[in-house]
This record gives sequence, structure tokens and C-alpha cells, in this order.
Amino acid sequence: MRKSIATVSVSGTLAEKLTAISAAGFDGVEIFENDLLVSPLSPEEVRARARDLGLGIDLYQPFRDFEAVPGDVLAGNLRRAERKFEVMERLGATLLLVCSSVSPDAIDDDELAAEQLRLLAERAAGHGISIAYEALAWGRHVNEYLHAWRIVRMADHPNLGTCLDSFHILSRGSDPIGIEAIPGDKVFFLQLADAPLLAMDVLQWSRHYRCFPGQGTFDLAGLVTHVLETGYAGPLSLEVFNDGFRQADAGRTSLDAMRSLIALEEAAARRRGTTPPIPPPVIPSGFAFAELSVPPAVPSAIASAVSAGDPPGPPDPPGLPRHPPELSALLAALGFVRTGTHPGKPVELWEQGEARILLNATGDEPALAAIGLESPDPAGSVKRAESLLSPVLPRHRAPREARLDAIAAPDGTELFFCRTEHPGHSSWTDDFRPRAEGTARAPAAEGITHIDHVALTQPRHHFDEAALFYRGVLGLRPQESLEVPDPYGLLRSKAMSSEDGALRMVLNINQVGAQHIPWQHIALACDDIVATAHRLRAAHPGLLLPVPANYYDDLAARYDAPPELRELGLLYDRDEHGEFLHLYTITAGRVFFEIVQRVGDYQGYGAANAPVRLAAQHAWGGQRSSTMNVTPSA
Amino acid sequence: MRKSIATVSVSGTLAEKLTAISAAGFDGVEIFENDLLVSPLSPEEVRARARDLGLGIDLYQPFRDFEAVPGDVLAGNLRRAERKFEVMERLGATLLLVCSSVSPDAIDDDELAAEQLRLLAERAAGHGISIAYEALAWGRHVNEYLHAWRIVRMADHPNLGTCLDSFHILSRGSDPIGIEAIPGDKVFFLQLADAPLLAMDVLQWSRHYRCFPGQGTFDLAGLVTHVLETGYAGPLSLEVFNDGFRQADAGRTSLDAMRSLIALEEAAARRRGTTPPIPPPVIPSGFAFAELSVPPAVPSAIASAVSAGDPPGPPDPPGLPRHPPELSALLAALGFVRTGTHPGKPVELWEQGEARILLNATGDEPALAAIGLESPDPAGSVKRAESLLSPVLPRHRAPREARLDAIAAPDGTELFFCRTEHPGHSSWTDDFRPRAEGTARAPAAEGITHIDHVALTQPRHHFDEAALFYRGVLGLRPQESLEVPDPYGLLRSKAMSSEDGALRMVLNINQVGAQHIPWQHIALACDDIVATAHRLRAAHPGLLLPVPANYYDDLAARYDAPPELRELGLLYDRDEHGEFLHLYTITAGRVFFEIVQRVGDYQGYGAANAPVRLAAQHAWGGQRSSTMNVTPSA
Repeated sequence: MRKSIATVSVSGTLAEKLTAISAAGFDGVEIFENDLLVSPLSPEEVRARARDLGLGIDLYQPFRDFEAVPGDVLAGNLRRAERKFEVMERLGATLLLVCSSVSPDAIDDDELAAEQLRLLAERAAGHGISIAYEALAWGRHVNEYLHAWRIVRMADHPNLGTCLDSFHILSRGSDPIGIEAIPGDKVFFLQLADAPLLAMDVLQWSRHYRCFPGQGTFDLAGLVTHVLETGYAGPLSLEVFNDGFRQADAGRTSLDAMRSLIALEEAAARRRGTTPPIPPPVIPSGFAFAELSVPPAVPSAIASAVSAGDPPGPPDPPGLPRHPPELSALLAALGFVRTGTHPGKPVELWEQGEARILLNATGDEPALAAIGLESPDPAGSVKRAESLLSPVLPRHRAPREARLDAIAAPDGTELFFCRTEHPGHSSWTDDFRPRAEGTARAPAAEGITHIDHVALTQPRHHFDEAALFYRGVLGLRPQESLEVPDPYGLLRSKAMSSEDGALRMVLNINQVGAQHIPWQHIALACDDIVATAHRLRAAHPGLLLPVPANYYDDLAARYDAPPELRELGLLYDRDEHGEFLHLYTITAGRVFFEIVQRVGDYQGYGAANAPVRLAAQHAWGGQRSSTMNVTPSA
Repeated sequence: MRKSIATVSVSGTLAEKLTAISAAGFDGVEIFENDLLVSPLSPEEVRARARDLGLGIDLYQPFRDFEAVPGDVLAGNLRRAERKFEVMERLGATLLLVCSSVSPDAIDDDELAAEQLRLLAERAAGHGISIAYEALAWGRHVNEYLHAWRIVRMADHPNLGTCLDSFHILSRGSDPIGIEAIPGDKVFFLQLADAPLLAMDVLQWSRHYRCFPGQGTFDLAGLVTHVLETGYAGPLSLEVFNDGFRQADAGRTSLDAMRSLIALEEAAARRRGTTPPIPPPVIPSGFAFAELSVPPAVPSAIASAVSAGDPPGPPDPPGLPRHPPELSALLAALGFVRTGTHPGKPVELWEQGEARILLNATGDEPALAAIGLESPDPAGSVKRAESLLSPVLPRHRAPREARLDAIAAPDGTELFFCRTEHPGHSSWTDDFRPRAEGTARAPAAEGITHIDHVALTQPRHHFDEAALFYRGVLGLRPQESLEVPDPYGLLRSKAMSSEDGALRMVLNINQVGAQHIPWQHIALACDDIVATAHRLRAAHPGLLLPVPANYYDDLAARYDAPPELRELGLLYDRDEHGEFLHLYTITAGRVFFEIVQRVGDYQGYGAANAPVRLAAQHAWGGQRSSTMNVTPSA
């Protein structure tokens, strides 16, 4: 389907917006009037610029407070409209959005509204222009889409149709099934926006919190299905007012927008039983590995100290920055064994059970650089990602190296699609020696069995984009969303998982003032966390994040929790499905580890304990060295 | 009155919070439970720390979901309470906040609630603890303060009273006059928070948007008056959940908090006819001067070009950064005359009519450094500022120099209180030569008569603090507040003025991504802007910010505005009181000028034209060199 977007949805000058929108592959734009008014480009220049960029001008908008007014006001309104028709002729735009009046001049009289809209359509026709009448959710007398349609039908003019806007329809809780009562050729335009469910004034909600389809909670696939049932053949067009998008890079926002429309078109096709425009997602069945970049290896007193069983430093007093541990020492302390090294690159493979970590010594500060995902069809995974505009990464393949299909996530994290040790498929593990020579797998020395989840921190403005990416490309489903107090800010978090829970990812925003704290962590599943915690606390107490005693006093007030939780420094959560025990290591660079044990059918992430973790991390002092400035996006 | 604050109102660890709160002069704190839970300090250590800092622990809070439950749930709740009593004994806290239940277990039965609260109070009494029961605005069955009081009265236990929270009372629109029905000795605690009027879910509103008294729209002086009428003798305590404060510097937030309580105490005293704790504001009668810091003077081709009547550069094409004009050249072009220089400092006085600008050549990038305010009582102005915790600036006084009383505004702008050329008072203008030797005043060469207003940009997190400062210290009244789309973000703006309109100030937030654009401007009043614009456009067209032609096409659609507006590049606004014509200069460093003419009784600032101004400024390219990073506040 033809895809359009309103210029108000992305940031910049009108010229910058058009360039970014064209680069993302859109077919057309809605020119938002204010963007034209403040532009130094004449309407003729905008027309030429759009044409050169391959963009049609599908709509000029909005024209306000026109209909159902007393005669003297009507004359002024028609004069105002004539001026806009002139601008549209210069622009080469043939469709004008008229939204239902919010003026105190407006009279609650559908016949009058219809009569005046018919007059407007007749005037418009003289300029080759048509009118799309839309019910604003906060219109004075007309605020339901079927009411707007009733007036359009009453007016009965070929140059007058209705415009449907998903926000105005769904924010009021109206049932979109009524759309099917409208003939497709009278649906002159379709504007799409999603939104998070917020209990707030609908005007404020609309002006600041709209988002792209799939980033909110509206059932847009359902709405689009009803619109397509009418026979509507116009564009799917995004109209999104969002404070974040206003500040973000226009090119990036436009790509995000296009990705949302492609996914929406797919969802609507599935709903209607027609052929989706893109291949289906290939759902990963788990983590193949996590790759951490680390600085090139140097002899380290700390590493020796850890391997000799000593803690890297005293756990108290808090608040003092300390030297972070070496990641290899941390992995060794957690029971991982180095099972192989890459013959051609400074990369080590560390294993325990099915948990595999690569240490890539070409980095700077320790950070999560890549994630390996087990895919039943790696090539299919990449095709899916490509169809949703994700960059496919070139792989320099050495002789004897397994080819790895990889893409880049929006934040630059590399995602590799793997079939680890699968018959008939080359395995990335074959690249490592002595691993390749059939070394036995590392035993689960500390009871760690696999990677439970990976948590990635996203810059604030790119959070919704990342969520849409993981949802669309990997087929994950949004799970828990929450806000957690941090001593110096607020952490926002969204968990996503495959339907069977085999792949879990958490996206965080951790904002402190203008700073983004880019912590990332790998949660390792464990089958007996009490035993693991016993051993770790005995051998490497300094590696565990200290938990304040006050936490256990409160835990005792809330639950009959076993007293050994306090001795072991374990955190505890419980819901109606089961229990969750977990602990955290201290932070190395941007990275830390969590060890978790799920009991029963607990599906969460211990959110209730997140404030304790955040405060302990700040107290430990690791954050000062691992903060980085948010890059301004404009 | 005793002044307290909840630890949740400021950022940091519990230890950092206590230090900042003490430094701001508070007498006590409410310990917010989560702050204790995540702290490595034991309750005994917190108690000692507070004692050493001179802070009483006035309240421990909150205890949730206690009352009106079935018997089996009650047993668990009492056990939970006993654990909290133990913590409170270790803390040395004797008052526990119990907020009305939101639990689905709670039964709508006031007698049961009263009976169980009586039981809780009896248990508490055994520990020397009292209970303050509060109605949450979103409580399941109890959400009105008089309902909570009814239950407390029914329970009738000396260790049970009520806690009043201004947010929970005023957010629901409850009439606070009912407070006077409660005996003062049963009002165990008073929690204060203001809030902007937002049409949103009250829980979200409460958790993210509370602010300090005077920063929102609630009538807190009225509420406090009712509470004091009861005979209440406890503390005024702030409990503010605010996403901005969570990220801001705790010391600064605490001072802001204390300033708000002092101003509130004053307002309540005036309301009650008792003696206010601080001297009244001395309302300024206008601007004495604006002082701009500029780089040390160097010979400049641009300055010579401008003084010869040539523009500093071609006005087109937009989008290219250009060399900013010298401020002295800009002033000369606007018709200002250099009437004096300071004998001992590199400071020049420029005048036109009653508009006076100081250029202080000790700066770096051109910026507004200080504002001179005409005060009928400069010493009184400083006393007022001091009583509201503003730093008084030391003035190095040379022989023959007028003493100038000065304070620092929260953003560092210096405010001088002056009596310019007032009989019987030394005038700061006497310091300038030849000005001091009786030079005639500069003629209003370009029709400029005085400074109409000064607009200061504030970092986002300090906006409410600045508004409270100007309101409290100078006695200004909040006027217009608005949001304006910027091509790369959103500008938020609040205008304030003295009652007679003689002093007008505008506070802006201009945020682009993580960047704060620190533009400041001086608006000069003019008595014939059409003539002024004619002359400027003829002599110095390059100094005027270009206005896009599309703006005038739209203006013509909206109004019968005179066509010369377009030729002259004048912006135009109109309301029911009058008209407003204005124009802007290009930006020099962080500073630009506006020339305005008010017609009739127009009191606004041409807000409708602000998007045009912002887009033109970005297009002109001045913003890239004048952005600066927001300093992270933690």
C-alpha cells in the first residue's frame, strides 16, 4: 500500500523533513501547515523539492473551525479557505483536511454543518481540491467518526469525504467496526497513530504522547482491517505528535516510522487472510552467546587476586569508586571455563552449561557488543530483519570460519543468528580451539545452566524504536513494563519474550539528569542459587553487589522468607505463579551479571528489588566511570 | 513554624539527602521507607546522622493497606506493623503515616476500619509510637480527608490522629474549609505539595508532577490557614514526588524547597492577619539597565561595515552559520548612543530614551550577565531577597562609585537594585563619564523608549525554581504560560509581571534533545515600530531576522492586516484587548533584541509568532555556536 507521513511527525526544517522521509522510502507526505508557515521555501519550491524526492503531497492540514457557524462568521471562514486553496494550488496539493470545529461559534446543528461543508466542497472543486472532514476527539459538537460521516453523507458532494484518524477513534474507545458502514470511496484519507494507554486529558495525550503503530497499545491492525474492508485504496499515513520525535534525528525517526507501517501492513494482512508483504518472523529459541568487548589483555594484579580466591577489594564502605574487576576474572569466579580461543582474532570462548560468553579483546571499556541468537533458520531471520529495514552486517569470513548471519539493532548491538552444534549446519563454535577439537563441554561448576535474559539500556529517545524493532524483527511479545526509582533518577523498563519464554530481553532507560547510564547485564539461569550463593560468598565475597540489611528487615515484615537469604545476600520476589531468587555481581565497565533462579511459573524479573539494586550500584561507585553523554540527536 | 521535608522530595542516597536538607535549614524530615530500605546505613546510623545534622525524624512513611480487612489478613498486617515499629524504635521515630488502603482485601466498613486502627494505635502506644491516618486521593474506600477524620474520631484513641496532605485534598477538588472541623491536637501531621493543574489520572499526577508550594496552582496558603485555625502546632512538611527533583542536585532542591515554605508561611500569615515572618516584597518599577558581557574589544571589519550602514552579511540563503554581529555595532544600528564609559572598568553605557544597556568587555561569548531593576527601596529589596535565601553579592566599591545592592538569581544572573537619577539617592549612572558630567540623554533616535521585557532561558530542571524565585523575591505575578513548537524541540515559556505591567520578565525552557539553548533576549519598547522598521530595513537589513513569506500569506488569511507588515518584516498579533507588532534582530552570542509596540491594552508577548521566530533563528544558523550542554545535576 502507498505509505505517507505527516511532516509534523519528524524533526527539523521542512526541507530536512522531506529529505529524511524520502530516504526512508515513503511515497507521500501530509504537509502540516505550521511547517510550511515557518519555512523560507515558497509553496512552489516545496512542490519542486517533494517532486524531486519522489514524494507526493497527499494532504494539506489542518483547516480548523470552519463548519456550523452563523452567516457572518461563514463569510470570513470561506475567505480564509480561499486563501488556503491558493496555497494548495501553488503546492500542487489536492486534498485538504478539515477537522471538526472546537470554536465557541459552532452551532450543534448537523444540517447546518453539512450545508456549509457542501458549500466549501463546491468552492474547493473550482480549484480541483477535495475536502476530508475529520472528527477531532475533542471537537465541540462532532467528536465521533460516525458523526462526521453522517454529516459528510448528508452534504453529499463528490469533493467531500471523511478522514479517519486512529487516535481520534481509539482514544475515545469508539468501536472501529462502524468504519465498514462507510463506502471506501468516501474514505478520503486514513491517518494512523498509536499511543500508550494514559488516563489523561485527550488533547494533551494527543499532542505529546502519540507514537508509531506497534509502540503503543491501540489495536491498529484491527482498525486498518475495517478500513480496507470498505474498499479504501488511499495511503496509510502516519500523523504522530510526540515530544521525543520532535527532538530526534529526522532520518532515524523516518526509518522507525516506515518500519512501523510495514509491520502494520503485515499484521492487517494476517488479520484479513491475505498475503503479507514480508516474510514471517523466525522466532529464536534462545541465546547462543553473549559477546562482550573488553580492553586488550594486560597482566593484572586483580585478576591474579581473584583467581587466587581473594576478593578484588573490601566490600565496604560504599560510595567510593573502585577499580572494576577484569571480566575474565569475573567469569572465572562465576564458574565459567575458557574452552577455546579464536585462531585469528583476540576472542575467547567461555562456557558453563549452555551459557556461552565471548570475550573480544578489541574494545575499550567492557561492554556488551553482540548477542548470538539460536535461530531455526538463520537466513530467514536475516530476510525478516532486512524486510523491516535493519542493516545486514557484512561478515569477513576467514577460511574454515562458519558464516554468521548478522544484523545491527537500532542501538548498534550486533545480533547474530546461529545454529549452535546443529546437525547439518556449521556451528560458530567450530571456529574456536581447542573447542573445535571436541573438548568436552564445561561442567555447570556453579550450577549455571543458560542465559536467562539480557538487559540492554537504550537512550531515552530510542526506547520505543528499540521495542518495535525487537517485537517486529524477532517476533517477541511485550511483557512487563515498569518504572523504578533510582537514587538519582527514574529507570523505565520493558520486558519482551518469545511466547514460550525461551528468549527473554529487557529494554531499560536509565536517565540521570541529561545523562544516560548505559549499564547492560546478562542474567544467568541457575538450578540451585542457594548453593551457588554459598560458594560465591565464601570464595569471592567482593564480587557480589552488597544488599543493605534494611532490605531484609522489610522482607521479614512482608514474607516468611528463609533467614539464609540475608546471610547469602539473595534478593527475593514472589507472585501468584511462583518465586524468584537472584543476586548481582559488581559492575565491570558497562556490564554486570545477574544470577537467577525461577521457582514454579514465575515469569517476571524481580522488579520489586530493582530499587535496591540501583542504589547498591550507585553506592558501589561503578556508575561514575560508566556514564556517557547522550548524543544530541538534532 | 517548624519546617520538614520528606526524603523522597530530593535526590541522592539517604545520607546525601539528610546533608542537603540540613544545609537548607530544615528542622526535620519524613523518612520515606524506600530511602531507608536501599540505604547501607542501619536505622541507628540514620538516627545518629540526623541528630548530628540537627534534624528531627518527624515521620516514618508510608505504611500501606492496613485497615478494614478480614480477621486472617489483620493478623498478618499487625505482624507487619510490629516489624515496622521495631525499625522506628531503632530510628527514634515516633509517628507513623498509615495511608488509606488501596487493597482489594479492604472492606467498605468504617466501623471495622476504626476498630482495626484503634487496635493498631494501641499496639503502637506500647512502643511510644503514634499513628497518623491519611486519605489517599485514590484510596479504595477512603479517599476524602473528612472521611479519614470520621474514622479517626470513631476509633477514639490518643495515639491515633489524622494526617492532612494538600495534594490528596486539593487534587480531588475537596473544599479545605472542612479542616476547621478537626481539633488541632488530632491533626498529627501536615504534608504539603503543590501541583500544576493537569487533567490526568490522579495517581500518575501525584507520583510525577507534584511541586513545591508556589510552583503549581493549588491555593496552599488557604489550606494552611484552615489547618492553623484548628490550633495545629506541628511542622509544615513538604512531600513532593517529582521526576525533575529526582534528578536534580539535592542541595539546590532543598534550598528551593525551603524558599517555598518560607513564602508559604508568609502568605498564610497575611491571609490570617498575623505578622509575616519576612519583610514584604519591594516591587520594582521597571528596568534600570541590562548588562551584557561581551568579549574584549578588537578591531572588527564587521563593526566598521555596520557603522558605515552596510549589513554584516547577506540575509540569504538561510541555514548557514554566519559570523555574529558585534553587540556594539548592533546597538548602534538600533539607534543607541554610547553616552559614557566607566573610568575603572571596561564597561560602556549605551542609551536610547529610558532604555540603557551596559556592555561589559570582560566576557567571552556575548551574554546577558546582569539586570538592573528600579527599586523604590534598594536596601529593602535586598533584605527581601536575603530572607528568601538568595545570595547577596559583595560589591567592590571604588571611590566615587555608587554602591549597588545586588543578589544572584538561581541561574547566576546578577540582579542590581537601583534608583536611577533619583533625588537624594546616588545613581549608578554617575559612575560613567562623560555621562556624569551632565551629558544630555540620548535621543530616542529609533523611537525606542524603554525596555519592555527581558526573556531568560532556564535549564529544564530549574524552571520552577526560577519562577518561584522571581515571584517570591520580586513579587511578580505569573501571567501567560505556553508551549511553542521549535523545529528541533519544544519551547516552554512562562511570563511574569508586576501588577502594573511596569516590569515584565519571561522565563523559557528551550530544550533540543539533551541540549539547552541558552538564548536570552531584551525586548525594547518603541512608539512607532512601522517608522523604526522602515529605517532599519533601509539601513541595516542584514540585522533583522528574516520572516518567511508564507507567514504573511497565512496572516492575510486570518486578518485584514496592513500589507506593509510583509514589506517591513513585522510580526503581528491581536487579542480582544489590543494589537502587538514586533521584530527581532539576529543573534549575537547568546543574545538578541526584539523591538515591540503594544497597541491598546495588549498584555501578551506575541506567542502565536514564536514558532516563526524559532524556525528563523535556527535557519539563520546562530544556534549551533550558542548551544551548551546541560550540566548533569547529580
